[in-house]
Amino acid sequence: MRIGAIEAGGTKFVCGIGNEEGTIEHRVSFPTERPETTMKNVIAYFKDNQVEAIGIGTFGPINIDPASPQYGYVTTTPKPGWAMYPFLGTLKEAFDVPFGWDTDVNAAAFGEATWGAAKGLDSCVYYTIGTGIGVGVYAEGSLVHGLVHPEGGHILTRRHPQDTFQGNCPYHGDCLEGMAAGPALEKRWNVKGSELSPDHPAWEIEAFYIGQSVTASILMLSPKKIILGGGVMHQEQLFPLIRAEVQNNLKGYVSADEVLKDIDSYIVPPGLGDNAGLCGSLALGLNALRE
Amino acid sequence: MRIGAIEAGGTKFVCGIGNEEGTIEHRVSFPTERPETTMKNVIAYFKDNQVEAIGIGTFGPINIDPASPQYGYVTTTPKPGWAMYPFLGTLKEAFDVPFGWDTDVNAAAFGEATWGAAKGLDSCVYYTIGTGIGVGVYAEGSLVHGLVHPEGGHILTRRHPQDTFQGNCPYHGDCLEGMAAGPALEKRWNVKGSELSPDHPAWEIEAFYIGQSVTASILMLSPKKIILGGGVMHQEQLFPLIRAEVQNNLKGYVSADEVLKDIDSYIVPPGLGDNAGLCGSLALGLNALRE
Repeated sequence: MRIGAIEAGGTKFVCGIGNEEGTIEHRVSFPTERPETTMKNVIAYFKDNQVEAIGIGTFGPINIDPASPQYGYVTTTPKPGWAMYPFLGTLKEAFDVPFGWDTDVNAAAFGEATWGAAKGLDSCVYYTIGTGIGVGVYAEGSLVHGLVHPEGGHILTRRHPQDTFQGNCPYHGDCLEGMAAGPALEKRWNVKGSELSPDHPAWEIEAFYIGQSVTASILMLSPKKIILGGGVMHQEQLFPLIRAEVQNNLKGYVSADEVLKDIDSYIVPPGLGDNAGLCGSLALGLNALRE
Repeated sequence: MRIGAIEAGGTKFVCGIGNEEGTIEHRVSFPTERPETTMKNVIAYFKDNQVEAIGIGTFGPINIDPASPQYGYVTTTPKPGWAMYPFLGTLKEAFDVPFGWDTDVNAAAFGEATWGAAKGLDSCVYYTIGTGIGVGVYAEGSLVHGLVHPEGGHILTRRHPQDTFQGNCPYHGDCLEGMAAGPALEKRWNVKGSELSPDHPAWEIEAFYIGQSVTASILMLSPKKIILGGGVMHQEQLFPLIRAEVQNNLKGYVSADEVLKDIDSYIVPPGLGDNAGLCGSLALGLNALRE
């Protein structure tokens, strides 16, 4: 099989071709410009590389309600040209194949459940922690959409007692994203997170916020795996700190060995590494073909 | 059709007979004693009232993993005799009918999605706020189980700036249940919540905590309806306060009319009133029969 995959990010688009085993056989990437320019590149790529289906995992917010006239649109983004842009419709006009369409983080969750850290499980929660914080939710064998789609990056957390940073989410100030995304780290410490040493106190504060949010995910959704990806999570020292924070928050209340004993294999990095997004889009395309 | 329903609570059991329209035709209730006594009453009731299937929505925590040898057990409860009690197995020995088995709050969520406030929707979150706080989750047309089952009553919330109450959850101190369940209200104000006047400042503090938790549910799950039941929610003045709190927390970020404009019909009391639990168990039984 030859399945197309589009990982549409705020700064770059990655397009690729893969197969039903989750192997990416070819890929290209180009910067995210105005949609006319970017979509011309996407269409040219898939005209040159014929595929049986295309899966799209995209930045948002997007409309994923099949019953809505705006299904397939990017909705309220400040990104020039993309607000109310018919992303999916533009591609459907160019290619007569089945399409998968979801958020970037739902795609990554689905990729991880298909071929990665949650393979064989019917639920997982996927976090990307980078320029922003996004959360994809896979529950009872379905990606969760609901009213719009989950926006778990913006939940409110308690403030770390030593943290005086005011938070920089333009909507909520000190929500999770405002306190723990890459730009918050940089603003709080006046250097990029990647330049802070692994034993810098920044990481304990970072883990405090992420740990609270993961705790909320466990209590609200009881997922079988928590996957933490994105640029900030390249700081591997965060994992043990976050796991300790979660156990300290739960205090033994969720009586499952995965949380109590095997937390090292419960809260994990993406099994697909930085391919989680593109492989996830591939999985969405494959799923669309099979439906 | 004649379907049996069991709403198993910590202080009382309600057993009933209903039909496929969600009508309860008969019911009895008795106190929750040791399981030998209570189950004898349950079995006698359904020996006298033959049914085609039985649905059970029960206090917990319970095991709802069909692959586990402890499937159908109540697990770690402090209630005398009920820890590791084979609730479902005991009934299966007595009756050769299909059984539905889930938590009390998942049952209520399912009842509301079948015949109540979320009828026709494929998702809702159901809160019961009373002696404790429980949260049932229905997403993408399935009740959410996952690792164990959701325990959203114990999420951590920010403290109300005027609230000095330390919280009384034996596990987490000042988690949602520790700050906002009935006993917390009573301990904070030294009178039962039902004796506080509707304009007492207690309700603004109560709405602050519940509102934060509902906000987290919306961000993590994006449900199509939020249903707030249980004894504390008989205080109808809480609804407008909670809705205002949620809108204030979200600050327009979740761009759905349900949240922005129609929140009065988005965050609502149970459509089935205090029958949500028993009707939910009925719906579980009906579902078991149809599977």
